[in-house]
Amino acid sequence: MQVHNRIGIFDSGVGGLTVLKSIRERMPQENLLYLGDTARLPYGTKSKESVLRYAVQAAAHLQHREIKLLVVACNTAAAVALPDLQESLAPLPVIGVIEPGARAAVTQCPGANHLVLATEATASRGAYRDAIQRLDRNASVTELACEMLVALAEEGWASGAVAESIVRQYLGPFIANGDSARLQTIILGCTHFPILRPAIRAVVGDEVSIIDSAGTTADVVERYLLENKLQAEGGRGELRLLATDGRRRFARVGSSFLGMPLAAEDIELIDL
Amino acid sequence: MQVHNRIGIFDSGVGGLTVLKSIRERMPQENLLYLGDTARLPYGTKSKESVLRYAVQAAAHLQHREIKLLVVACNTAAAVALPDLQESLAPLPVIGVIEPGARAAVTQCPGANHLVLATEATASRGAYRDAIQRLDRNASVTELACEMLVALAEEGWASGAVAESIVRQYLGPFIANGDSARLQTIILGCTHFPILRPAIRAVVGDEVSIIDSAGTTADVVERYLLENKLQAEGGRGELRLLATDGRRRFARVGSSFLGMPLAAEDIELIDL
Repeated sequence: MQVHNRIGIFDSGVGGLTVLKSIRERMPQENLLYLGDTARLPYGTKSKESVLRYAVQAAAHLQHREIKLLVVACNTAAAVALPDLQESLAPLPVIGVIEPGARAAVTQCPGANHLVLATEATASRGAYRDAIQRLDRNASVTELACEMLVALAEEGWASGAVAESIVRQYLGPFIANGDSARLQTIILGCTHFPILRPAIRAVVGDEVSIIDSAGTTADVVERYLLENKLQAEGGRGELRLLATDGRRRFARVGSSFLGMPLAAEDIELIDL
Repeated sequence: MQVHNRIGIFDSGVGGLTVLKSIRERMPQENLLYLGDTARLPYGTKSKESVLRYAVQAAAHLQHREIKLLVVACNTAAAVALPDLQESLAPLPVIGVIEPGARAAVTQCPGANHLVLATEATASRGAYRDAIQRLDRNASVTELACEMLVALAEEGWASGAVAESIVRQYLGPFIANGDSARLQTIILGCTHFPILRPAIRAVVGDEVSIIDSAGTTADVVERYLLENKLQAEGGRGELRLLATDGRRRFARVGSSFLGMPLAAEDIELIDL
């Protein structure tokens, strides 16, 4: 593993750019290689067999491009495929987003009632429940599939009346009678969801902690590189973006996740 | 072409079941073979190259199963791939949903202002505009990409406050000041949308015709079989359902489109 190699980041689409953004902010010298499998998104409604096959193909592509570490920045892929990827890519280190998200939640709120907003596939795997309860036996975890929130984020309707009505439809049963006191945290268990934070906040009020794994995943990556002396020094922080379909759409939707303008020409189209 | 062969029906997912339902109602003796490419849905946000490749693979699979006619029951696939499919599958007849939908609109409302609700890919191809204006030079056509409506239909939130708020967000600019008089028709340019008809009706009022292509596509299929003496006689109306991923999800979501219960065991999983 070479210090000047890139950090590889993989997602089903553009949502993982929220993780890339956090990594860039903490480690501006690292060269980053991002792959969004836009030809086959969304992963969240696909079977585990399909998600596993897609994730293995994407990871193999990034491994051939000589990365020094792989971040699985897609909760669904991490929920379904992380152990398989860690085994098949070894000795390449592979870091998912679920364990860091779970750790952030139990650190901020030990013994809490956590509500995880996720895709169908992530929720049905119980990956957050397992990760949280491994760290905190007193925690209680509910996982809720919220596919409409993915579409909402992709459409760019991050705030406003429609966003709030959809969030309220999902969260209503948990905040009935204006009582959100029995919830201590909401965990954003899909990398699409951080841009919906204002709408979620408007619905649940100020008493509930809203936790996403982008920042804590970046922390885990930083610590790993430091401990293994793999940090880039004097790097220029190059960013390369790969997609399997739709460069224009990737640029348009990705801009809002990355918080900076992207052009279709910035995206390299690949086949998996 | 054998009269006892099946009618093949292809969609990216379950939306095309609205077309299948209409065909079944009109031609209960026909044996039907439906393929939903659920591993790669949605098509509506994918590039035309990807949609074309997927449609060709799906059509080839159905052709090998000895169908007597292919219905492309996915507006996006029809918008992108119909001429290619008709050429490559000849002499197998291939019928899309766009031409029948356009014909229904101009027959009901000649010289009208039509608003087509569609996926991004369908809207960007201008397929409805072309089809309508070939039939009616005086028609005016606006095509609107409404990806959130696909997610809404898939989630099964077909009516109620959330559905109406999303429909209103898209249609607001066309019905400003309570004035929908300048719209004469709304064409449901995606096979997911017929189940949203009540929510659309609630938003646009009673003056606007809401047109879907399921019924008129079934009419075109029936006429073709009659004219070419390909109608099944004494058939038992067998229904076979194929999907490329997620049999349980197909059964659950498909039930609401088909209007009858489906079980995962009713779905055959195939690889394309």
